[in-house]
Amino acid sequence: MFPKEDLKTYLKAHVLVFFVHNIFKYSLHQVIWPLAAGINTMSKNLKPIHLDYSGAGYSPSALVKRSIYSASKQADCYPYEGYDMLHEKIAEYCKTESRNIYATNGGDEAIELLVTIFGRKMLVPIPTYNEYEYIGKSRNSEIRYKNCLRDDNSYSLNYTKADLKWATLVWICNPNNPTGSIIPRRDILWVLDNTDAIVAVDEAYYEFAGNSVVDLIKKYKNLVVLRTFSKGFGLAGLRLGYMVSDSSRISSLKAAAQEFNVNRIARAAGIAALSSLGYYKKRIASMKRLRDEFEQFALGLGIYAFKSNGGFAFLKFKSIAELEKIYVGLKNKGIFVFKASDSEFTGLKGPYMRIAIGNRGDLSVLKKELKSLMQKQKLSDGKLR
Amino acid sequence: MFPKEDLKTYLKAHVLVFFVHNIFKYSLHQVIWPLAAGINTMSKNLKPIHLDYSGAGYSPSALVKRSIYSASKQADCYPYEGYDMLHEKIAEYCKTESRNIYATNGGDEAIELLVTIFGRKMLVPIPTYNEYEYIGKSRNSEIRYKNCLRDDNSYSLNYTKADLKWATLVWICNPNNPTGSIIPRRDILWVLDNTDAIVAVDEAYYEFAGNSVVDLIKKYKNLVVLRTFSKGFGLAGLRLGYMVSDSSRISSLKAAAQEFNVNRIARAAGIAALSSLGYYKKRIASMKRLRDEFEQFALGLGIYAFKSNGGFAFLKFKSIAELEKIYVGLKNKGIFVFKASDSEFTGLKGPYMRIAIGNRGDLSVLKKELKSLMQKQKLSDGKLR
Repeated sequence: MFPKEDLKTYLKAHVLVFFVHNIFKYSLHQVIWPLAAGINTMSKNLKPIHLDYSGAGYSPSALVKRSIYSASKQADCYPYEGYDMLHEKIAEYCKTESRNIYATNGGDEAIELLVTIFGRKMLVPIPTYNEYEYIGKSRNSEIRYKNCLRDDNSYSLNYTKADLKWATLVWICNPNNPTGSIIPRRDILWVLDNTDAIVAVDEAYYEFAGNSVVDLIKKYKNLVVLRTFSKGFGLAGLRLGYMVSDSSRISSLKAAAQEFNVNRIARAAGIAALSSLGYYKKRIASMKRLRDEFEQFALGLGIYAFKSNGGFAFLKFKSIAELEKIYVGLKNKGIFVFKASDSEFTGLKGPYMRIAIGNRGDLSVLKKELKSLMQKQKLSDGKLR
Repeated sequence: MFPKEDLKTYLKAHVLVFFVHNIFKYSLHQVIWPLAAGINTMSKNLKPIHLDYSGAGYSPSALVKRSIYSASKQADCYPYEGYDMLHEKIAEYCKTESRNIYATNGGDEAIELLVTIFGRKMLVPIPTYNEYEYIGKSRNSEIRYKNCLRDDNSYSLNYTKADLKWATLVWICNPNNPTGSIIPRRDILWVLDNTDAIVAVDEAYYEFAGNSVVDLIKKYKNLVVLRTFSKGFGLAGLRLGYMVSDSSRISSLKAAAQEFNVNRIARAAGIAALSSLGYYKKRIASMKRLRDEFEQFALGLGIYAFKSNGGFAFLKFKSIAELEKIYVGLKNKGIFVFKASDSEFTGLKGPYMRIAIGNRGDLSVLKKELKSLMQKQKLSDGKLR
C-alpha cells in the first residue's frame, strides 16, 4: 500500500545518500554523531528504568526491524494471507510439524484459550505467574493452589495423584516465574502419566533455560506447550506467542479463537526473528551472563539470590521492611521492579523481589543504587541494635 | 530502544536531505519519479486485488504512519504504560468517559469476550457477520437464528418478545454486514426495552453509516456497543477495536481479558488516527462516493445492488450459476471478492456477492472485468434460449 510516498522516500534516501556519501564522505556525520551520542546518554539517566515487566534488554535483529517496517506498510489489510508461513517457521524451530503449532496474541492469549476451553478445575502451582489464576477467576474456574516453594528455597511440583484425577487443566511453569526454577523432565512425565487432564507447560522462558518437553506432544495428546516471543526474542510490545500440541487439539483451539488473532506486524517479526537465530543466541547468552553476574553481586550485598533460569533475577530480602525500603528507594530513583505483593504473581508472599534482566547500562544503574541503599540499610540496622 | 541506530538514521536523513535539497533542488527526484511511477503501475496490474476482506482503500494518515514507526522502536517492551491515553481518546470520539471504553485486539476480541462471558443463549440475526456464531459454537452457545432478510430485499430485526426473554446475549449488526442495511434506532430501543439480556450492537461500519446508539449506554446498562479501527480508519492489519458500555460492565469485561491485549503499535496508531479525523472524514466520504458509483454501475449491468451503508457493496445475481461464473471469472483475473457460500457470513444463502470498497484503481479494474464477464454471460444466456 501507499506506494507513491514510499517510493518517494526510497528514492530520496538512496539517491541523496549516494551523492552526499561521495561528496562529503560522511565527514559531517562523523563529527555530529559523538556529540549527539553524548546528549543521548545524558537524557537516558533521566528516563525511568523498567526492570519490572521482563522484555529484552536489547533491540531486535536488523532483519526483524526491516520486517516491522515492511509489514507496517500494509497496516490497512487484514492478515488475510493467514499464518501458515509463521506456523511453519515456528514448527521448524520446535522440530515439529506446522499442524502442531498455533500462534497467539502473546502467550497470554494461549492461556486465555486454554482456561476458557479446559479450565473448569485447575491445578495451579504457587508461587507462579498470575495469569492462570487471573483468567481462571473471570471464567469461574475452580482452582486448587499447590505450594511448591520449600523452606530451603527449592521449588518442585507438589501435585498428588488425587489432585491430578480431580483436575481438568494442570499448570506447570518451566522454568517457573518468578523463582526461575527448572521443573525436571521426570516430574513433568510423572504428571503426564497420572492424569487425563490437559497439562499446560508454560515455557515462556525456554530460550533462557534450554530444556523443553515439546518432543513429548507425540506421545501425550493432552500436553500443550506454551511459548512466547516476548522474552528471549524481545518482542513483547508486538504480542506474539504460540502453542505446541497434538494436531487435533491445535485445530480445536484454533476454532475457539478469532480468525486474525495475531497482527500483521507481529507475524512478520516472528518469522524474521526465527530467521535471525544466530543474533538472538548471542543476545540471550549475554543476558544470561548479566543475570548470573547480578546474582553474584546481590549475594555479595547480603541479599539471597535464587539461581534463576529465566530472563530475570529473583531475590529474597531479610524482611518485608528491608524489601520495602529497597523497593521504594529504587522507585525514587526511577527504577521499577516487581515485589511479591504486586499482582504479577500468584501465591507469592514474603520479602521477594523480581528483577528483569535489562541491558548492561540499566543493570549498572540498578547495581549502583542497590549497593548504596543496602549500605544505608545496614547502617540503620546497626543503629537499631 | 535501539537509539544508537535510530539517531544515525535520523541524522543521516536530515543532514543529507538538507544539503542535497539546497544543492539539487530535487531536480533529480523530479525526473526519476514519473518514470518510477510508470513501472509501479505496470507491476500493480499483476498483483492480486483483494476486495474480499474489507480494509480501507487508502493509506493511513501521515500522523498514523509516524506513530507506527515511532512505536515500533519499542517493540521489545510490553505496553506497560497501559491503555488510558487510548481509552481517553476513544471516549472523546464517542462523547463519553474513558471508564466506558475498553480497547480490544480487533473488534473480534470484543465478540470473543462477550460470547465467552454472556453467550450461553444467543440471538443471531441472519444473514450477518459470521463471528458471533463462530465463537458461539466453540463456547457451546445455544443459538437461535432469526431471519431478517425479506423477499423484497429489505432487512429488519425479527426478534419476538419470547426470543428476547429467552436470550442471554442479543446480537445486532448495524449497519448489517453484508447487506449494508441500517437498523433503525427505534428497533434497537424496542429490543432494549424488552430484554434483560446483554444487547451487543456491532457498529463496525459506524464511520460509513454515521448513526449510533453509543449515547444509550447511560440509560441501558445492558447495552454494549462494538466498534473497530479496521474499517473507516483502515487499520485492520494492526488489530484494534473497542467496546463502549456502562463502566461496571466494562470493568468486568476488562477483568476477563489478558492485561496487554492490544499491541503497542495498534495503541499508538489508534491514538494518532483519532488525532487525524479531518483526513479520515475526507477518505471515508470518498469511499462512500466510490461505493455509490459502483452500485449504480452494477445496476446498469443488470445486477441487483443493495443500498449499502457499509464499506462494501452487496450484489444479488440472477442465479447461483451466474454468480459462480462471475466469481470464478474475477478470480481468474486475480480479483478476490466474497460470495454467499464463503464462511464469512452466517445464514447467507443465494446468489449474493460482497465487494469491499477498495481504492479507485482497484475498482476500475473490477468494473472493467465485471462488465466484460456480464457481457459474455448475456451472450451465453442468449445462446441457451
